[in-house]
Amino acid sequence: MSSSAESIAKNARLSGNILKTISNENRSSLLHKIHDGLKANTASIKQANQVDLQNALENKLADSLYKRLDLFKGDKFETMLVGIKDVAALDDPVGKVKLARELDEGLNLYQVTAPVGALLVIFESRPEVIANITSLAIKSGNAAILKGGKESVNTFREISRIINAVISENEGTSGIPSGVIQLIETRQDVSDLLQQDLYIDLVVPRGSNALVRQIKASTKIPVLGHADGICSIFLDKNADLEKAKRITIDAKTSYPAGCNAMETLLIDPEMPQWWLVLQNLTKVGNVKLHVTADVKSAYLSKLQESGNLTEQLQNSVVDADESIDFDKEFLSLDCAVKFVDSTEQAVVHINLHSSKHTDAIITEDQENAEYFMKGVDSSGVYWNASTRFADGFRYGFGTEVGISTSKIHARGPVGLDGLVSYQYQLRGNGQIASDYIGSGGSRAFVHKNLDVSKVQI
Amino acid sequence: MSSSAESIAKNARLSGNILKTISNENRSSLLHKIHDGLKANTASIKQANQVDLQNALENKLADSLYKRLDLFKGDKFETMLVGIKDVAALDDPVGKVKLARELDEGLNLYQVTAPVGALLVIFESRPEVIANITSLAIKSGNAAILKGGKESVNTFREISRIINAVISENEGTSGIPSGVIQLIETRQDVSDLLQQDLYIDLVVPRGSNALVRQIKASTKIPVLGHADGICSIFLDKNADLEKAKRITIDAKTSYPAGCNAMETLLIDPEMPQWWLVLQNLTKVGNVKLHVTADVKSAYLSKLQESGNLTEQLQNSVVDADESIDFDKEFLSLDCAVKFVDSTEQAVVHINLHSSKHTDAIITEDQENAEYFMKGVDSSGVYWNASTRFADGFRYGFGTEVGISTSKIHARGPVGLDGLVSYQYQLRGNGQIASDYIGSGGSRAFVHKNLDVSKVQI
Repeated sequence: MSSSAESIAKNARLSGNILKTISNENRSSLLHKIHDGLKANTASIKQANQVDLQNALENKLADSLYKRLDLFKGDKFETMLVGIKDVAALDDPVGKVKLARELDEGLNLYQVTAPVGALLVIFESRPEVIANITSLAIKSGNAAILKGGKESVNTFREISRIINAVISENEGTSGIPSGVIQLIETRQDVSDLLQQDLYIDLVVPRGSNALVRQIKASTKIPVLGHADGICSIFLDKNADLEKAKRITIDAKTSYPAGCNAMETLLIDPEMPQWWLVLQNLTKVGNVKLHVTADVKSAYLSKLQESGNLTEQLQNSVVDADESIDFDKEFLSLDCAVKFVDSTEQAVVHINLHSSKHTDAIITEDQENAEYFMKGVDSSGVYWNASTRFADGFRYGFGTEVGISTSKIHARGPVGLDGLVSYQYQLRGNGQIASDYIGSGGSRAFVHKNLDVSKVQI
Repeated sequence: MSSSAESIAKNARLSGNILKTISNENRSSLLHKIHDGLKANTASIKQANQVDLQNALENKLADSLYKRLDLFKGDKFETMLVGIKDVAALDDPVGKVKLARELDEGLNLYQVTAPVGALLVIFESRPEVIANITSLAIKSGNAAILKGGKESVNTFREISRIINAVISENEGTSGIPSGVIQLIETRQDVSDLLQQDLYIDLVVPRGSNALVRQIKASTKIPVLGHADGICSIFLDKNADLEKAKRITIDAKTSYPAGCNAMETLLIDPEMPQWWLVLQNLTKVGNVKLHVTADVKSAYLSKLQESGNLTEQLQNSVVDADESIDFDKEFLSLDCAVKFVDSTEQAVVHINLHSSKHTDAIITEDQENAEYFMKGVDSSGVYWNASTRFADGFRYGFGTEVGISTSKIHARGPVGLDGLVSYQYQLRGNGQIASDYIGSGGSRAFVHKNLDVSKVQI
């Protein structure tokens, strides 16, 4: 274990402990100053970004990657700056009273939101993410250690230099130490920091599934993220055909690389004209269908009967490899297709094969819909809506930390709320436990809930 | 990895997925039937318990352990039975709407509490715990795999046999499969199950700190529990002497083996007559003080000046080993003592050395108290109250799953709430994401919060 990693992690912990005590006013005001600092240094950031772009050209990076690196493409830089002010303007996520209870006269218990502590945030090459994460961390009272993709290292360094200069200059008035934001640069630093579970409370990887999977496998620190997005749509026997067609096209084809895209289509064969949904996916969406044997024979014979069996449709049907295709995130215009005989069977399939991201039922039958939403064990359970709605912006969270497929803490699209936890404050005037019943005393607890909307602490 | 562990874990997952869909009425009614079944089989349970007690005698188990094993000592068995009905009577923790938001006309988002899934609960030898855990798991919609201490194996087996018989008999009416509660018996089973992170969502160890530490070190599954209880009390310079004396005696001596007992006492030497607190701890509480060099010389000279330096007091002072005593859970009438110069210093010390369980400040100064409660990063932050209040019963949670020192999900004393997480339900009528702004469409999101108290889903 590197001592440098330990000192970075400890610095984050100590700085976070101070940041935790700073008012929302000072945290937000610092974000405005960071905004101003970055704006005033547009020229030097642009220069650093040019170096990264030049290196990208020399290293023959893919065009799509090059576009991501370019911080001054269109209004990307201005959007980044506005984003900082937007986060500053959000409600304070820290210090919200979630529960208030009188334990006894003069002895009150409060459950109060509090920062998680020290974050390790790992992201890929979009240079604007560093400003985004900095804002979220400071706003939520968390210290953050940041590692960006190496392609943007010059841009990251310059932005980080400016952010840290602004924090240092304002430390006297804001009380916020510069250790709240630390940039690290090498993969070795990341490996070393992933061992610092004594000081780091949460790892937030923002990037490819491969990145998230690798991080989850190599740390004891809780990881907020999703390693896979295997989303299913189930066409119930009472599915509306038009809704089924529209939703499957949207879910599969509008952004196939998205983690909220449909990867598996489950069909109750009692749904009238179910084959038109498959036909539509291929004709309109150019989707390749990985089907089980029973789906294949039923589908092809339906196409034949109806005189619709074209070469395109025939070629778009391939045999599913059942041992892998229903556990696969295609991230392409491919979809695994299977028959299930009931909503119950659909739920069983999904709970065993989905990645607990988002799954939907298409049906006009309320009872089946309710069973599906109660039974499916995923962060999102949808009725007659596309899985593509699983997204922080669409949920109205303003800003998104990531999408979590964990079962605890934060699930689904995670806003600032995912960066806070809670603490219990107990405010007394000298009470001791042994005065109470159950611990040798005679006093009884009152245990009266107080109205949190009226509590002032 | 044993295939038996995999099949047990998978059975828990599948049974939990069914339990998840069962109404509170059916879950609670099954608990009443389990109560009746155990009551009707008192004789056979007593017989099994006698076998465990006989074995304990033969194996010369410690007296305190023997007492724990005895399920029919006093009203323990009746209390266990009443406990099952008490849990049945609690509010349903599942299906509570925490957030409701209109995304667009006819497209509503709900954040709804949901069971965590499949639990692995490991506890020691108290036989009554199995009924307690069974109630909590079924009430909260979670499947549970249970492992008790080997000393109570006969009692556990008999209770578990009856519970499973009742669940099986009622499966037809309740819909709850018997796989929701499974008993395992060997340590090897536990090791194998700790590898089943695909199927098991949360490990709940209830027992010694050594047990919890060992489990945390050997699994990727999140663990709800505390490996240490290093609680500190800080005497601010404006501490009230009487409060300081009462609270430190309660916190250190009323149950020294408790995880919420004080292990470290931090003192601002500007507190007038601080030495009387130490003197009181030894004279009234027979506490041995592990003190730093500056505390030792100041304390002994104060005792001498005041003519109070007795042999008992002199002998109760030992030199602290600073490299370990402030990170130590003594679990005995020992206490580490140190000077700190300010509330800020106290907070820094606690955040580096405490186990994030419960820490208290004694002061009449509101500003310092608020700083302490904002700055200390523990699940409980107390002002003028004993750390011994950190307990589910005292907090009014009715029943306690355990005390967590994690930073995420559930912190401090955890009631039924710690066994639920949440899911997002999205209810639409055919909406697709690409109709909306930001995804190629022109519709805008409404994002209007609905009053959760009026929402009916």
